Amino acid sequence: MKIARFSHGETISFGIVDEEEDELVVLKADPMFAGFEPTGERVALGDVKLLAPVIPRSKVVAVGKNYHEHAAEMGGEAPDEPLLFLKPNTSVIGPDDAIVLPKQSERVEHEGELAVVIGRIAKNVSEADADQVIFGYTIANDITARDLQRSDGQWTRAKGFDSFCPLGPVIDTEVDFVDGTIETSVNGVRKQDGRLADLVHSVPAIVAYASSVFTLLPGDVILTGTPAGVGPIVDGDTVEVTVSGLGTLSNPVRSA
Amino acid sequence: MKIARFSHGETISFGIVDEEEDELVVLKADPMFAGFEPTGERVALGDVKLLAPVIPRSKVVAVGKNYHEHAAEMGGEAPDEPLLFLKPNTSVIGPDDAIVLPKQSERVEHEGELAVVIGRIAKNVSEADADQVIFGYTIANDITARDLQRSDGQWTRAKGFDSFCPLGPVIDTEVDFVDGTIETSVNGVRKQDGRLADLVHSVPAIVAYASSVFTLLPGDVILTGTPAGVGPIVDGDTVEVTVSGLGTLSNPVRSA
Repeated sequence: MKIARFSHGETISFGIVDEEEDELVVLKADPMFAGFEPTGERVALGDVKLLAPVIPRSKVVAVGKNYHEHAAEMGGEAPDEPLLFLKPNTSVIGPDDAIVLPKQSERVEHEGELAVVIGRIAKNVSEADADQVIFGYTIANDITARDLQRSDGQWTRAKGFDSFCPLGPVIDTEVDFVDGTIETSVNGVRKQDGRLADLVHSVPAIVAYASSVFTLLPGDVILTGTPAGVGPIVDGDTVEVTVSGLGTLSNPVRSA
Repeated sequence: MKIARFSHGETISFGIVDEEEDELVVLKADPMFAGFEPTGERVALGDVKLLAPVIPRSKVVAVGKNYHEHAAEMGGEAPDEPLLFLKPNTSVIGPDDAIVLPKQSERVEHEGELAVVIGRIAKNVSEADADQVIFGYTIANDITARDLQRSDGQWTRAKGFDSFCPLGPVIDTEVDFVDGTIETSVNGVRKQDGRLADLVHSVPAIVAYASSVFTLLPGDVILTGTPAGVGPIVDGDTVEVTVSGLGTLSNPVRSA
């Protein structure tokens, strides 16, 4: 089941995507908290603006260097344990919203990633139980000011600017990762091409690890790392991240 | 004016501290959003449990190495620009709540700090205008798993565990920093003793800098860095941070 958050006229709603009819089955409230109760209304997908499918109330947790080839291109190795960092919820934007290049950076890069949306309060969850606290999956772009990442040492500023966490287009509650791929393109040219099976630390391992540090709250999002092929984006570009079964997250890029 | 958030029986409320009477003037709602409207009720300070005076909806921003002597004791120098990192809101606890030492660390340390509470949406605020977006000041303890800080490189895990951000006891909307001091003691023995005038990057400079990266939201908290003298805390300790005019933030320490 694919869940979208969208604006339609002046209203912001959640809906279930009916892919056959290209429509949204409008829900009474956020299904993460209120279940899947339809209002009875349906709207055409073409008539709405899709929004980030979740607004993290607490945190976006991200994992660095979680594909071997990307760790190598960054000049290192994938660490034995997941390397965690945080992106603030103020960095979240939705599909088709602009990634704004801050004046402070000379080099901003794309990092297409699979994202996990947490649906239940979770602390010290085992890998075996991780599925029970996952609401679903979406796509993220872990936008990074590569020059500031290197000069600051800490990655907070480089990865935390407003608009540096595109999420969407939908949350899929049943996506199947077997043979899944993740691709990132800039202006239609493929730059990153990875297989989800190549994640160094698996989704259950990451959820278990993160929950051993932080209490995870419903609406928290975990970015699982990017495959090789990261590179710059500039004013006027369009960057697209596609994950099998999850669709495509597309965002234009513009200067501040 | 000193603002407290407290539980009294089953109710959580905000109040203005009446220091002469040792009472709280109960407010109708969170004064950050609803102004200072009293219910007419007063309760004795001794009859309530003080809570963290603010729950950050978005983020706790912190600044590393912002006193020269602390930067030196960590083996470096204070950076030219504020070095930002994030602590998740799930790390926040209130006065007298226990700091829980995680099993993953062999060495957890105290870092007493002055904290700024943001009261208005703020983006690209100038130093001159910083005062206008500050709601008030409180005390923080930037608890840090020193071993994990070193081994991870990124500070997120080391500083992000649940209970690693004690805040309180109150928010002061008018504190005066001239000649202000910040002291941290463990079991009554003074360990850190700093002067707020020695902040490398001043409060207005930090607010301006942080707001050039992130949109700051009402309820965001900014930790301004710790003076020299950081050191370990262990099960059974009590750690107290005192800032002139703000009172004392006291927390017991216990093993997980």
